[in-house]
Amino acid sequence: MPAQVNVVSGKLTIDQNFSVSLSGAGARDERVVHAVDRIFPAIYRIAGIPILPHVVPANQDAVLNIVVESADHRAPQKLGDNERYSLTVTQSHIRLSADAPLGALRGIQTFLQLIQQNTGAGSEPGFSVPDVSIQDSPRFPWRGLCLDVSRHFIPLDGVKRTLDGMEAVKLNVFHWHLSDDQGFRVESRRYPQLQRLGSDGMYYTQAQVRDVLAYARERGIRVIPEFDMPGHVTSFLPGYPVLGAGNGHYSIARGNGVLNDLFDPTKESTYRFLDGFIAEMTKLFPDEYFHIGGDEVDPKQWNDNPAIQSFMQKHQLADAKALHTYFNQRLLKIVTKNHKHMEGWDEIYQPNLPKSIVIQSWRGQKSLWQAARDGYQGILSAGYYLDLMYPASYHYSIDPMKPPIPAPRNGDNDDESKPNNTPMTFDLTPAQQKLILGGEAGMWEELVTSENLDTRLWPRLAVIAERLWSPESLDDIPSMYRRLEVTSRWLQAIGTTQRWTSESMLQRLAGTMPYAPLQAFSSVLEPVKGYSRHAEQYNILTPLNRLVDAIMPESDAAREFRNNVDTYVAGTHNPANSQALRASLTRMAQSVTAVRPLLQTNSLLKEDIAVADSLDALCSVGQEAIAVLDGTHDAKLSSGANDQVASAAKPQADMLIMIAPGIRKLVDAAQSASH
Amino acid sequence: MPAQVNVVSGKLTIDQNFSVSLSGAGARDERVVHAVDRIFPAIYRIAGIPILPHVVPANQDAVLNIVVESADHRAPQKLGDNERYSLTVTQSHIRLSADAPLGALRGIQTFLQLIQQNTGAGSEPGFSVPDVSIQDSPRFPWRGLCLDVSRHFIPLDGVKRTLDGMEAVKLNVFHWHLSDDQGFRVESRRYPQLQRLGSDGMYYTQAQVRDVLAYARERGIRVIPEFDMPGHVTSFLPGYPVLGAGNGHYSIARGNGVLNDLFDPTKESTYRFLDGFIAEMTKLFPDEYFHIGGDEVDPKQWNDNPAIQSFMQKHQLADAKALHTYFNQRLLKIVTKNHKHMEGWDEIYQPNLPKSIVIQSWRGQKSLWQAARDGYQGILSAGYYLDLMYPASYHYSIDPMKPPIPAPRNGDNDDESKPNNTPMTFDLTPAQQKLILGGEAGMWEELVTSENLDTRLWPRLAVIAERLWSPESLDDIPSMYRRLEVTSRWLQAIGTTQRWTSESMLQRLAGTMPYAPLQAFSSVLEPVKGYSRHAEQYNILTPLNRLVDAIMPESDAAREFRNNVDTYVAGTHNPANSQALRASLTRMAQSVTAVRPLLQTNSLLKEDIAVADSLDALCSVGQEAIAVLDGTHDAKLSSGANDQVASAAKPQADMLIMIAPGIRKLVDAAQSASH
Repeated sequence: MPAQVNVVSGKLTIDQNFSVSLSGAGARDERVVHAVDRIFPAIYRIAGIPILPHVVPANQDAVLNIVVESADHRAPQKLGDNERYSLTVTQSHIRLSADAPLGALRGIQTFLQLIQQNTGAGSEPGFSVPDVSIQDSPRFPWRGLCLDVSRHFIPLDGVKRTLDGMEAVKLNVFHWHLSDDQGFRVESRRYPQLQRLGSDGMYYTQAQVRDVLAYARERGIRVIPEFDMPGHVTSFLPGYPVLGAGNGHYSIARGNGVLNDLFDPTKESTYRFLDGFIAEMTKLFPDEYFHIGGDEVDPKQWNDNPAIQSFMQKHQLADAKALHTYFNQRLLKIVTKNHKHMEGWDEIYQPNLPKSIVIQSWRGQKSLWQAARDGYQGILSAGYYLDLMYPASYHYSIDPMKPPIPAPRNGDNDDESKPNNTPMTFDLTPAQQKLILGGEAGMWEELVTSENLDTRLWPRLAVIAERLWSPESLDDIPSMYRRLEVTSRWLQAIGTTQRWTSESMLQRLAGTMPYAPLQAFSSVLEPVKGYSRHAEQYNILTPLNRLVDAIMPESDAAREFRNNVDTYVAGTHNPANSQALRASLTRMAQSVTAVRPLLQTNSLLKEDIAVADSLDALCSVGQEAIAVLDGTHDAKLSSGANDQVASAAKPQADMLIMIAPGIRKLVDAAQSASH
Repeated sequence: MPAQVNVVSGKLTIDQNFSVSLSGAGARDERVVHAVDRIFPAIYRIAGIPILPHVVPANQDAVLNIVVESADHRAPQKLGDNERYSLTVTQSHIRLSADAPLGALRGIQTFLQLIQQNTGAGSEPGFSVPDVSIQDSPRFPWRGLCLDVSRHFIPLDGVKRTLDGMEAVKLNVFHWHLSDDQGFRVESRRYPQLQRLGSDGMYYTQAQVRDVLAYARERGIRVIPEFDMPGHVTSFLPGYPVLGAGNGHYSIARGNGVLNDLFDPTKESTYRFLDGFIAEMTKLFPDEYFHIGGDEVDPKQWNDNPAIQSFMQKHQLADAKALHTYFNQRLLKIVTKNHKHMEGWDEIYQPNLPKSIVIQSWRGQKSLWQAARDGYQGILSAGYYLDLMYPASYHYSIDPMKPPIPAPRNGDNDDESKPNNTPMTFDLTPAQQKLILGGEAGMWEELVTSENLDTRLWPRLAVIAERLWSPESLDDIPSMYRRLEVTSRWLQAIGTTQRWTSESMLQRLAGTMPYAPLQAFSSVLEPVKGYSRHAEQYNILTPLNRLVDAIMPESDAAREFRNNVDTYVAGTHNPANSQALRASLTRMAQSVTAVRPLLQTNSLLKEDIAVADSLDALCSVGQEAIAVLDGTHDAKLSSGANDQVASAAKPQADMLIMIAPGIRKLVDAAQSASH
């Protein structure tokens, strides 16, 4: 949603006469020139209209006239680069004005998003853009996605597709989590054993990295590499065991969770390695920031290692935290020597660090705001982890400038967000507020693969993008969901694959049979929330080909059901008002009947028979409760209704039946009514 | 379907212990080594099981043991290279034996195709391969696809995806139709104005061509370039007008159909150009065959050009056909000088050509067999043009060694194939039969784009592939359709996009609304057949974004309905037998009701309101006819039933309602019954 929109009546037709002119001091910027070239194939994808590229000289009239007032510094894109634009559509012309190149890129996306099929009586077959006047600029200058490519590798095409989607929703930072215990994912020429022994052959060559950097730059996206240290470093150690604080025998981690392996921060050889490694990587990645991770340091190896203990005594380092600070101070010197600002997770926030660092907060607003009070820049990631399968409404409610709301829990009676019990007060001065640069969504890949990545990113990433771009005042959840549905279709026209991916994985589960029954049945299911699935016995080679992996993180059908229950329970109970609810329960029960033969036949679906039983039970209990509320003659609740709902609301096969909270409301209401 | 299959009980589990060994004199062939590397990601796509590549030395035991008896010549792949293999699966091991590298590639595809989810009571969750013994080799050595990339350009990813699908169904010739009136699609370094002025910027660089050549070679597919001449050459002429026989002012053709422009075969400069051009292109493309087109020469420009007429008189060339022969003789010398065999369409078949040429027959078995009687090699393409939207059953019935059946017509009462009225006799001697090398499917792109290519190719191309690989005796149409449905899903697991493409185009038509109602409504529609749509006013920039472009060429639902009608009409007429028919007509009528708001709102769908009206009418008439046949009290046919069916069976919005022939059968039966 742009900062200001004014829609007037009328529209401009998009057809084969479409043309673009480009003028202003910033018009020669390669990003703008290429973005204009990309408009034509984008219109083809969106509207199916093939238009030969038609860019006219600046002084000639075109359908879309782009003015870029000024050029900016050449490269790389910097934090705070101007993204403002205005877009005016009249019946014959479109004018897109931007202060600088990035604004033109953002405005082009808004223009493309406005292309829609003509509708209504008497409309000509074709596409048009509504007459509109838009003034737009972002609320925060740092709007990112942190993509973990270590736990499961994401090949180049997945990275590029993600950048395409990010451009469409105006995100501007791609934070590339390139190393972790489970894999080191970038070619080092100086230390080639890193990728040879640390990647299972799955890494980006430096040529591929440059390709991604150029691809991101063209889309107005900064790329910040992260090499997490001194923890999360297991994949460095098979190639360079001398770096480790442990026993010297290392292999790539297969399991998940926080592992023990740490760098040894007491050896000079560690810093010699980092000196060479960081010199190479800071040259490869042009952004002014360099992310060194720094999170989740389990001090066991340091505490168990006599040489490290004696070093700590000698240097009066009281504990592991002090040793970590010592490491960070040394690291900071190396990063600074290579002309980069250091970025890291909450844990790097220690005394005596320069004010140029950026702290990425996975702990939340409390630590983010404290850092700002102390004069440090920060970005928020807590509440934005998309791999935890929370609904879009939760992420939309998280704001870097507002107290957090608690995350939905598994098997809750009510998965709607509740106000926080321990209130926090937002008390930052305007100067401190400026230090809150924005936020980053997180996509950790323990349970996400290159196959189902798009289903986990999209469309929910779009609501975080809107939270970080659009005015703070936007908080209408139903409006968000309506627009999100349209946006998800738009993203798929652009090239993201969430729906298709989910359907192909359902097809695999259905085997040689059609997957439609499985799709209908699973349309009210969601994967379990938070970290409960992570606690199971997984490793990075475990097949993620079950129903929980195929379904979308959020069920639209179940949300609609719960909303309908709320309306019904709050209103007058009678058969006319309950008709739609009863019909949807009937359809769900029918979907259970239809899918049973598949669940009983296909081995990967057997674990879902229990889910089908529970859904069936919920449908029956729901029908009973409605009958009671409607006052149907002789209607009563089965004696075990509460137990049935409680049991069906629990995770099964790592999934939740998302109509369960709605059924509980019906049962509660029916029980109150009959008392 | 392999040549010989013997399935026994039992199965071999495919899990993370999967490994491959490779032995024999042909095991070091790069195609085999890389095909083995590709097995692991293929298993991931098919089964969702991540397996780290595990190839053990030849003398060690593995799950899949591949033996390649002998190496063959290095490169390029040649016509007739040995493709035989045998595959034996027991409960613990798989043995794949091939005479030579290509057989190993074919056998690997068969192995991958056998991977299926465990099913049945007591089966472990996972995937396996059934115990089986297969002996397999192809019926024909030339099994191809001719892909037109001139009328609509197909970018590199579309070409590679097509090659992936071709490998899966064991096709071995990619015939690349690289130039035609509407576009010249390959970079020439010697004559760069060809692509500069003849391609609208849409062409393959030589590096991209080499990439495709390598990609195809790894998949056991020969690549044969076609540069069509002396007709279909308009796109050569903007860059090199001196080549033309016309007025000297040329631009790329935008319209479709056979155009006038011809090379001037009387100028020595034409042959100097061809000498340089063919030298360059025969170096770029390594296959031993070089396709010079030669079809559809409209002699107008030759007849109208005084210089050409005087040349013909001087050289005693009686007519345009004689001049075409003269041109071909000169061309043959150039092709031969560059160590290639010449290939061309029917029209090149003229006296005095060497026996090494290959004639590609778009005219049919008659001319193919005549050429064979005269000692010439040939391949069949007539009956295999997938862009004409015929059903799979038609293409499956076309055989290079059998008389053709007539193609289905638009609006036929009965679209089932009928026996030919003018019988042809297959009378080739065994030696002549050997000259029939196989066939090629054709995909002409006048009305097909890079967007909907997969919907037009797949899955129907698979039945042509089976016709050319599998034993001639296979002719069970219901079995073919059952297997085709499974194969279509398998191809999509491999990477073809037919279903997704169709759904995204339906989504575009549905705009911001869900596309499910449009999908249900259009599920009994098909594009018009043959050339009737080509006759309309199209050019290559016409948007192909209508419903006819989005739907699949063949409706499974309508075929099933027609089959059910046949069973019902042939059997006892009573409500028990008609129940399914009546229910499906009810569903179709409901789909019309559900889709109407969309058709009335969205401008691109307005033309389909008439189709919806017709479908509605067909459903009503069908219900009436069934009621009459069932003997329902008071049932009668509306007086206009015949007219309604006749009108609804006609093409509307370039589509056919494919239940119309079934409804006509019901009406006919009802009318006979009431007489």
